[in-house]
Amino acid sequence: MVIVEQQVMHRLTRSHWVADTLSALPGTSVVLAGWVQRRRDFGSVVFVDLRDRSGIVQLVFDRGRGTPEHAMEAADKLRNEFVIAIEGTLEKRDAETINPKIATGEIEVVVRDIVIENTAKNPPFYIQDGVEVDEAVRLRHRYLDLRRPEMQSILMMRHRIIRAFRQYLDDHGFLEIETPILTKSTPEGARDYLVPSRLQPGEFYALPQSPQIFKQLLMVSGFERYYQIARCFRDEDLRADRQPEFTQLDIETSFLPQAALQDMMEEMVANVLRDVAGVEVPRPFQRLPYAEAMDKYGSDKPDLRFDMAFVDLADVLAGTDFRVFADVLAKGGVLKALVAPGCAGYSRKQTDDLVDFVKGYGLGGLAYIAVLEDGSFRSSISKFFSDEQFRAIADCAKAKPGDLILIGAGSRKQVLPALGALRSHLGQTLGLADPNAYKFLWITDFPLLSYDEEEKRWVAEHHPFTMPREEDIPLLGTDPGKVRAQAYDMVLNGFEIGGGSMRIYRREIQEQMFAALGFTKEEAYDKFGFLLNAFEYGTPPHGGIAFGLDRIIMLLAGAKSLRDVIAFPKTASGTDLMMEAPGEVSEEQLKVLHLRVRHHG
Amino acid sequence: MVIVEQQVMHRLTRSHWVADTLSALPGTSVVLAGWVQRRRDFGSVVFVDLRDRSGIVQLVFDRGRGTPEHAMEAADKLRNEFVIAIEGTLEKRDAETINPKIATGEIEVVVRDIVIENTAKNPPFYIQDGVEVDEAVRLRHRYLDLRRPEMQSILMMRHRIIRAFRQYLDDHGFLEIETPILTKSTPEGARDYLVPSRLQPGEFYALPQSPQIFKQLLMVSGFERYYQIARCFRDEDLRADRQPEFTQLDIETSFLPQAALQDMMEEMVANVLRDVAGVEVPRPFQRLPYAEAMDKYGSDKPDLRFDMAFVDLADVLAGTDFRVFADVLAKGGVLKALVAPGCAGYSRKQTDDLVDFVKGYGLGGLAYIAVLEDGSFRSSISKFFSDEQFRAIADCAKAKPGDLILIGAGSRKQVLPALGALRSHLGQTLGLADPNAYKFLWITDFPLLSYDEEEKRWVAEHHPFTMPREEDIPLLGTDPGKVRAQAYDMVLNGFEIGGGSMRIYRREIQEQMFAALGFTKEEAYDKFGFLLNAFEYGTPPHGGIAFGLDRIIMLLAGAKSLRDVIAFPKTASGTDLMMEAPGEVSEEQLKVLHLRVRHHG
Repeated sequence: MVIVEQQVMHRLTRSHWVADTLSALPGTSVVLAGWVQRRRDFGSVVFVDLRDRSGIVQLVFDRGRGTPEHAMEAADKLRNEFVIAIEGTLEKRDAETINPKIATGEIEVVVRDIVIENTAKNPPFYIQDGVEVDEAVRLRHRYLDLRRPEMQSILMMRHRIIRAFRQYLDDHGFLEIETPILTKSTPEGARDYLVPSRLQPGEFYALPQSPQIFKQLLMVSGFERYYQIARCFRDEDLRADRQPEFTQLDIETSFLPQAALQDMMEEMVANVLRDVAGVEVPRPFQRLPYAEAMDKYGSDKPDLRFDMAFVDLADVLAGTDFRVFADVLAKGGVLKALVAPGCAGYSRKQTDDLVDFVKGYGLGGLAYIAVLEDGSFRSSISKFFSDEQFRAIADCAKAKPGDLILIGAGSRKQVLPALGALRSHLGQTLGLADPNAYKFLWITDFPLLSYDEEEKRWVAEHHPFTMPREEDIPLLGTDPGKVRAQAYDMVLNGFEIGGGSMRIYRREIQEQMFAALGFTKEEAYDKFGFLLNAFEYGTPPHGGIAFGLDRIIMLLAGAKSLRDVIAFPKTASGTDLMMEAPGEVSEEQLKVLHLRVRHHG
Repeated sequence: MVIVEQQVMHRLTRSHWVADTLSALPGTSVVLAGWVQRRRDFGSVVFVDLRDRSGIVQLVFDRGRGTPEHAMEAADKLRNEFVIAIEGTLEKRDAETINPKIATGEIEVVVRDIVIENTAKNPPFYIQDGVEVDEAVRLRHRYLDLRRPEMQSILMMRHRIIRAFRQYLDDHGFLEIETPILTKSTPEGARDYLVPSRLQPGEFYALPQSPQIFKQLLMVSGFERYYQIARCFRDEDLRADRQPEFTQLDIETSFLPQAALQDMMEEMVANVLRDVAGVEVPRPFQRLPYAEAMDKYGSDKPDLRFDMAFVDLADVLAGTDFRVFADVLAKGGVLKALVAPGCAGYSRKQTDDLVDFVKGYGLGGLAYIAVLEDGSFRSSISKFFSDEQFRAIADCAKAKPGDLILIGAGSRKQVLPALGALRSHLGQTLGLADPNAYKFLWITDFPLLSYDEEEKRWVAEHHPFTMPREEDIPLLGTDPGKVRAQAYDMVLNGFEIGGGSMRIYRREIQEQMFAALGFTKEEAYDKFGFLLNAFEYGTPPHGGIAFGLDRIIMLLAGAKSLRDVIAFPKTASGTDLMMEAPGEVSEEQLKVLHLRVRHHG
């Protein structure tokens, strides 16, 4: 059965978007085009909900109100997701048929002409939100999944967010400059995606993990303020919520001190939130040195929508008889507590679960003290402590009756991250974080270097061009672990959304840095020669930052995963289920690339 | 010798850009930062031209005007391209020292404090325009090449052009949607760059030649108006002015007829020219069907800044005795002339060169008739024609005394492209095209199919989803070569800057198209199955266009090559001379990708 009219494309040409009908006067003649969302047949009258990108409006096919015969016949044939264009008259609905659920619920369009532009098969799932569909099915039919209102609005929001970022940067003297995708494999860093060269047998391009080197070179070139919405690539084993290609807002500036750059970035982010979400974010953002963040929250990206800071029990427990705690203190370890509000009534099972939770993060165990409503205590370590001692602990921790004090003991490296994870876990299970709040902060003064036990040398935490704090430079030769970097992360609600640093731009500091990393000058030039050469020609003081745009959009759109904010994402195994990429290629294609597949086994 | 101060970064923090000093009052205290462009030492006074991104200003180091001793000492050490920050007082220059060549030529800054932020080695070439430097040297030191004012202004213009395009599209309901870079190798089309997959042994991603399939799927998804500043990749043998990766302004729309889309695109381009170049472009753009363009100008992208249309001599030469021409007409060939204004005095050598020129384009030769000032003729075919006959030809060609008539004879396929190339060549050598003019036009109604002699079948000129003109659809089965496409190119000054088409969106037309291409239904599904499936779920009428942004920027910026409008371009062999990409990778990297390099023996 041929349903579609055999006629010229666009016999009826859209005069209004659906959303525009709201501001048009009743009686206006309109041509609308879109998809059939729903069809209800009452014999002599057929109602059709027409959907376009801007909204949904009710069409009425009614002989009694002037719909001609050919249109009545067409109305019989319509099914969900058919594509139509109609001409009709905009009218106010009768009071009893008003639909308050949709924006255009007070109007309807009485149809006078229709073109069925296309038919549609039954989709594999309903085109609406809140329907439980296996994600693999959604991804395989992504073009239908993207028809759902939720996905439409997320991608529209993505557009608006990126536009708001650009607006700020364009207004502040930043130039967008595109850097290459076909570039060179970097020494150090994550695993690169490679692209074989046909013209240079046996040689490869690499896809960029970030435009880091290029943006620093653009500062050498004197562009002073650069940004780019940059695609980046990392061939890592994908965790649940990672993508092999992702989008970064990449920024670099010259002659701008760290504090001024941070201030500008805050203003930018606050403007974006105001434009896109209508939210006013208080400024300046809190600034928390890394050491303090670890000490108080056991994380370099704490969610500060709730406080629940750790309490140091070293003083109040100094001289304790309890062997476990005394040993920890004697070995220079820490005793840290956090207070779970209102959890004094936790069952044995519940406290055991918390112990198991921290064990998963490498901490041996957890002591607890429940502060009961009557002022007494219930505790896993009650045989070793008097109520008076418990009271001292509770006072120190500012625990109130009804609260549960959880104590971790051990080395800093064991206790802090484990309690940090526990803090997040409790924040979530207890609903401590306001889902509508946006709590931004800066983590600063990251360690410049960390000791790599395998390589038996100091390695750069960020990259070897990160500037140390000036006053720490002398420590590079004597106590590298103590050197703090001029590095900063922007954190939102427990997620790192951006990170950057001031860069080393003077040769003598760079040389001290390489010495601290254990490189000879020769090794340094072997790895980074071309960049070091560039730096010899008048490099300005510079620094920058990169924001994870997908993550920011996910947080602002309230999406559940990165896959929901990317039009055509890949699965955890790096597969595009719709395109079926990656795929096989012909032997001929491999031959011109001078390649053979290595068969294992 | 350590020249650079050992002190905190940013001891002096910029208060003004150089360009801002123009609007500041004399007497203002300013902190400027940038590079030493030039230093002139007059013993007690040192002048330094300071350059930042915004411009150049003169600094004065003068003890007599209050420059302190430490700054006088620093001034002695300065060399070209040193990076400095200075504090000083803005003053009007004496009348005799005013420099009208620079914007800030009436002011100078008397220095009171200086930080030498960095030293600089002697650059391998002067950082100024108009210096002859080997392009390979420029590309190897691209970070210095980009310091030249010309390159700075081109990249700033690139930013402004792209921003102006976005502005128009954002204001007209278009959404920017990012599509994947890691995608699937396409059947048909140019050669893909491949990316081996680590997780799926022996499988490959491909880099997109364009987002064509994705943008059509976004129309299936109902986004209706899409755009993207999209990076595209083609592994072709690079001609002089091509890049393996290039940037495309990619656009797709639903429910918009071809004429409306063309109109919108014209308005967009005209807005960009107004914003960026202050040029008003007359609209609507001329529309020229492909057949007429070939017939009149021998090109599907004629430069219409000058006319020089071909003249058909078939009528005036019908019945000629001249065997060569008579044979051509008898065989259904063409006799076409073009008139080179003011070239009647061309020497034998000059006309021979023109003959050689067309021979390079496969045309056997060229007859000429010089219309002399006294009304007589000089011609390569004078023995076969009377002056009266020459006069008839000259009248037909509207040639004036002093003009040179050039005549090509042969089949359409030989004559039209060769004369078209000759027309461009003459336009250039005679300076017929106003270098400041912007002449836009549309070429429309391209042939849908062309016959591939090798494959012995009809192939799609654009791609198999291009919509035929409705009235030509019946010809698909009977005379495929006559079918015109709903395709259109935008041409500027002889360059194709954009091209697009309406797409096939109805199954029965798609099936006729595949039949014309000689595919069975099975073969069609084998090649394009996943897209054909998507098209079954309610595909709206849609069409789009893609603009070559690099080319547009080149034309608007008056740059000489595409390499000059790309920050980090590659050479004709696909090499990045600065990064030395592509490069070798480790055996380990290849192993995890399940690859071996194939060594040719």
